[in-house]
Amino acid sequence: MLKKNLIFLFLISSVIINAQIKLNNRLNLMPWPKSIVENHQQFIINNKFSISINDAKSERLNSQTTRFLRRLSNRTGVFLDKGFALKNNNKSITSLIINYKIIGKLKLGVDESYELKILDNKINIKANTDIGAIRALETLLQLISSKKDFYYFPGVEIHDSPRFAWRGLMIDAARHFEPVNVIKRNLKGMAAVKLNVFHWHLSDDQGFRIQINSWPKLYQMASDGQYYTHEEIRNVVNFADKLGIRVIPELDIPGHATSWLVAYPEMASKDTIYQLQRNAGIFDPTIDPTKPITYKILGDVITEVSSLFPDKYFHIGGDENKGKQWDANQNIQNFKKNHDFKTNHDLQNYFNSKILAILKKNGKIMMGWDEILQPTLSKDVVIQSWHGKKHMLKAAALGYKTLLSRGYYIDLLKSAGYHYKNDPIDNPDSLTKVQLKNILGGEATMWGELVTPLTIDSRIWPRTAAIAERLWSPKNINDVNNMYKRLKVISFRLEALGLTHIRNKEVILRNITNNQDISSLMILSNICEPLKGYKRNYGGTEYNTFSPFTLFADACTADASDAMEFKKIVKQFLLKPNLKNKKDIIKYLAKWISNYEKFETLDKNPILKSIELPYKNLSDLSKILKRNLLKKSNHKHLKKASKLLVMIKSPFVDVEFVIHDDLERLLSYLKR
Amino acid sequence: MLKKNLIFLFLISSVIINAQIKLNNRLNLMPWPKSIVENHQQFIINNKFSISINDAKSERLNSQTTRFLRRLSNRTGVFLDKGFALKNNNKSITSLIINYKIIGKLKLGVDESYELKILDNKINIKANTDIGAIRALETLLQLISSKKDFYYFPGVEIHDSPRFAWRGLMIDAARHFEPVNVIKRNLKGMAAVKLNVFHWHLSDDQGFRIQINSWPKLYQMASDGQYYTHEEIRNVVNFADKLGIRVIPELDIPGHATSWLVAYPEMASKDTIYQLQRNAGIFDPTIDPTKPITYKILGDVITEVSSLFPDKYFHIGGDENKGKQWDANQNIQNFKKNHDFKTNHDLQNYFNSKILAILKKNGKIMMGWDEILQPTLSKDVVIQSWHGKKHMLKAAALGYKTLLSRGYYIDLLKSAGYHYKNDPIDNPDSLTKVQLKNILGGEATMWGELVTPLTIDSRIWPRTAAIAERLWSPKNINDVNNMYKRLKVISFRLEALGLTHIRNKEVILRNITNNQDISSLMILSNICEPLKGYKRNYGGTEYNTFSPFTLFADACTADASDAMEFKKIVKQFLLKPNLKNKKDIIKYLAKWISNYEKFETLDKNPILKSIELPYKNLSDLSKILKRNLLKKSNHKHLKKASKLLVMIKSPFVDVEFVIHDDLERLLSYLKR
Repeated sequence: MLKKNLIFLFLISSVIINAQIKLNNRLNLMPWPKSIVENHQQFIINNKFSISINDAKSERLNSQTTRFLRRLSNRTGVFLDKGFALKNNNKSITSLIINYKIIGKLKLGVDESYELKILDNKINIKANTDIGAIRALETLLQLISSKKDFYYFPGVEIHDSPRFAWRGLMIDAARHFEPVNVIKRNLKGMAAVKLNVFHWHLSDDQGFRIQINSWPKLYQMASDGQYYTHEEIRNVVNFADKLGIRVIPELDIPGHATSWLVAYPEMASKDTIYQLQRNAGIFDPTIDPTKPITYKILGDVITEVSSLFPDKYFHIGGDENKGKQWDANQNIQNFKKNHDFKTNHDLQNYFNSKILAILKKNGKIMMGWDEILQPTLSKDVVIQSWHGKKHMLKAAALGYKTLLSRGYYIDLLKSAGYHYKNDPIDNPDSLTKVQLKNILGGEATMWGELVTPLTIDSRIWPRTAAIAERLWSPKNINDVNNMYKRLKVISFRLEALGLTHIRNKEVILRNITNNQDISSLMILSNICEPLKGYKRNYGGTEYNTFSPFTLFADACTADASDAMEFKKIVKQFLLKPNLKNKKDIIKYLAKWISNYEKFETLDKNPILKSIELPYKNLSDLSKILKRNLLKKSNHKHLKKASKLLVMIKSPFVDVEFVIHDDLERLLSYLKR
Repeated sequence: MLKKNLIFLFLISSVIINAQIKLNNRLNLMPWPKSIVENHQQFIINNKFSISINDAKSERLNSQTTRFLRRLSNRTGVFLDKGFALKNNNKSITSLIINYKIIGKLKLGVDESYELKILDNKINIKANTDIGAIRALETLLQLISSKKDFYYFPGVEIHDSPRFAWRGLMIDAARHFEPVNVIKRNLKGMAAVKLNVFHWHLSDDQGFRIQINSWPKLYQMASDGQYYTHEEIRNVVNFADKLGIRVIPELDIPGHATSWLVAYPEMASKDTIYQLQRNAGIFDPTIDPTKPITYKILGDVITEVSSLFPDKYFHIGGDENKGKQWDANQNIQNFKKNHDFKTNHDLQNYFNSKILAILKKNGKIMMGWDEILQPTLSKDVVIQSWHGKKHMLKAAALGYKTLLSRGYYIDLLKSAGYHYKNDPIDNPDSLTKVQLKNILGGEATMWGELVTPLTIDSRIWPRTAAIAERLWSPKNINDVNNMYKRLKVISFRLEALGLTHIRNKEVILRNITNNQDISSLMILSNICEPLKGYKRNYGGTEYNTFSPFTLFADACTADASDAMEFKKIVKQFLLKPNLKNKKDIIKYLAKWISNYEKFETLDKNPILKSIELPYKNLSDLSKILKRNLLKKSNHKHLKKASKLLVMIKSPFVDVEFVIHDDLERLLSYLKR
């Protein structure tokens, strides 16, 4: 009997999995829900569309239903009769009925589950909390579909809840300041893909970005006038709350602390006058953990900042303290000796324990990067791992709550697929129960050295949506190709939220060309990616905080679209050459040839000039490859092609031709 | 001798004027300066570029020089060694030396004049005030030019000052709320074209948009949660000050006042419960001028708002009070009788005099629209004329300061040329000295019924730049064609300030097409303009505050680019047909034919479907015209063409083919 049931269950789940895969190809949901079943009905969207909620007590839900109606109307062009949720809960005339049980307290582990059922003439959302209900509204918006004569919601039944409780995005507003509107549009983007933690990196060597009344020089002297006021912080926290997103502040100490010392050199480990760092890197200035004034200032600042952020968690950074200034300071050396501290790590532990006490007094739980980990540390501290899974698992085994950021460093400009495949838990069976319980989730990190308000969205999106799916959806939702297919749609939908990751590319290209025809640069940008890792700062260019981020590299993004397509085609061709895939390759080669010609008609300036030779090389190589593919000139010019390829492999203006290996493979094929 | 001198002067000025016209065609300055002379030198921009100021006391100038350096770097891609103005005033190593005499007090009539001299190795800015100096910096940025190997400033000597002291832009944030970032980017745009007054329309029937602590229901109940806090107001005022822009608040009373009555029905002329208006129009709800509570509330509110705006001027609206509620209220009728008021206008005068007293107590000067004019009114009141020049001149003759807004209603979506030709003073010789003295300038008005943050920039820019030139530059700078040539460049330069008037068009088209190829819609949008005047609200569609403004009409703008070009070509052709201009026409016709084919390959949805037939009609007509122009089918299908033309003349989805009259002329020509 048991066996029979198991077989039956197996069959059922196969059917469901198959159906899901089919749906995967038609619906563009991201993150993909835990369970979705089609019912072959459809709800047609017209001017009568209306919403009612079982009660009007949730401000969060009230604001999000209004926003839902605006977004629905903007997406479809349908003029709705009712611009707000109905006051009287007349179920017979309501299109969408929302039932929630309690107003969720926004904190780690709050219930975000929901059910969404779409029938021909009725849509139902059920959730334990209002936060679950707003997650459902985002899913519903992603389902909007159209036929020639109407827009509609396809009939489905969804049961959904997240795999991990902590699904975050960190934005570094210290290296380059990001005004409130940049933060807000990214919060909207986060909510659209069900991320629930915004981690706000507020201080670093390059700036202190938050108003502090108790020690006002911090923002007055160490921000270049670019900081968030208390009201702005509260405004953002409130805005995020409405979206079901927690906000965690980070003040990075005791390293990455130049900005503190610009304002208050009395807390420095070296007695000198400090200036804000303008470059990227790891710097020496470090807070002195032995001075009483240090804890006076930190105590007041942490208390003031704590009062602005209702969330329990408070991030103290703690990373990359090289201890150089500690070593050079005799007082600190004496202090270490007196306290029997063997290493600078011991001293930092002492510092952390003092900070922990301040945080506890403020009712906060401490968070920090890997470096703060030490076995004597209170077990309610959260370790955010940038060192990697090994460190994370160690912390989890020691009983610390942890989250993964390594592999989610979106500033490195790796592919969405790379991040997508990075699962916080590779093999659940290999972990202990304690470890499994302690892994809270993960966070994408948008470090700010190389981004400005003009470009930051294109570094966060759409790749962060793939990370969001990794952290929300079941582990077995992991088909990279299918993810990319959906990501393309999700990416363009995100721009309706005000995100600028698509539109600003053309702004940069118009500036570069002095408003000439940008199409040839557009084509070029679709096969170029900015140098990955921190290589943009190598080889001649050193960017600082006031460098121009309006260059060709800033117009390029990870996952260059034509390059991805070209790679596929070349792979297919080399596997099994046929007329179709040969034609596809030639189409691309021809495109690069003709667009280089177009590029050549532009009036040049220094920026365009710096792109000219690489573009010419690509065009010349494409010509040779094309001719050889067409057998018009068999094995001709292949030597020249090899020389061109060498040049094409070198980066130029901080980008690289990401198709260079495909071109190389093609060339090898032709040489045979 | 005198005669000789006069002839000499005449010759000199002819030479200068000719030179200016020549320069007009090469340099893209807007507003065009009072005097500009070339010296055939050039200053090359490299990483050593630096600025020094004669003293560091002007916060305004300090912030704007930093901003100048960022913009210079972003425009050119040059990595500057120095990101801030030099502290030590070492003139020998400084590129740009700024000398100003005093920190300008930002008020009506402040000195904005400047001199700018560019030599091979030195740039000098001289100004009486720091405000003059920042005007010069904007001119300098507009001069950036490039050759193949470098960017440079062309050698010129400019002496410049404004023709009118009041050069404003009004933004209505009441009908649709415009968040602070929308206001700020538009302030930057204003500064770039030397506008100096931001008039902020803060209340209307559709919303009350400013935090009021004394009577908090105003923002709590009558804003849908969309209002500016005190801090935001101060922040905007401070931001504008740094740009040399005054900020004038407007609270529209006693009409356009529904939002006041939603919050405090006790000040209403009719005893009822009020709701925010969601539609556009003129509504009945009017403040009761006979009740003490009215003046208690208005007194407190005006006092509170006055404290947030340092400028002397305060706008009370006063327009379009139909007095319907006054007529229906017996108490008000009795009050009129008791006070011997013959008309509602008398009663409104009484109301205005009470408000004037409140304003005076707060040290403010009253402003209002035409309707507040009455001869007994204090002479320091400013009349803003939306009725027209006749009214403006009458007010000016009566001794009131005035400014012109009629002819600058940019929400009507007329052409830049129309606004450009609208001079506040058509014929200076026909006016009295008093009139001339009293005409302060003008203001573009961006009424908010049909705009949202997504589209507002494309309704303000670039046309407002043409108005800015009308108000700054000498009267004889009035060549419309030359203005358009420069406007095209200025428009694209404005987007570097964060203005979205260019980039958001594609955002709308991507949404409409569901991210399909937008090029065919782009082509269509370049010959379509949104219905002018308030016609968008006629004929079926009635827009309200929560209607979708993401439609094809929202992607279209005034001065549709291809239409302007096509009009020119058709005109030339009909004047003197030749092979060249015939070919040009055919090129356009062919473009519409082929792009309709492309459009037809798109998957349709209701929005695309609504565009399909008009596009087909255009394509069909283009085919007939093309064939006839090519003489391939002489006089064939011309009857069908006439029928198509009738259809093409009708508006569709709230836009019109602005080339329909050119097509008609072509057809008539072919019929001959």
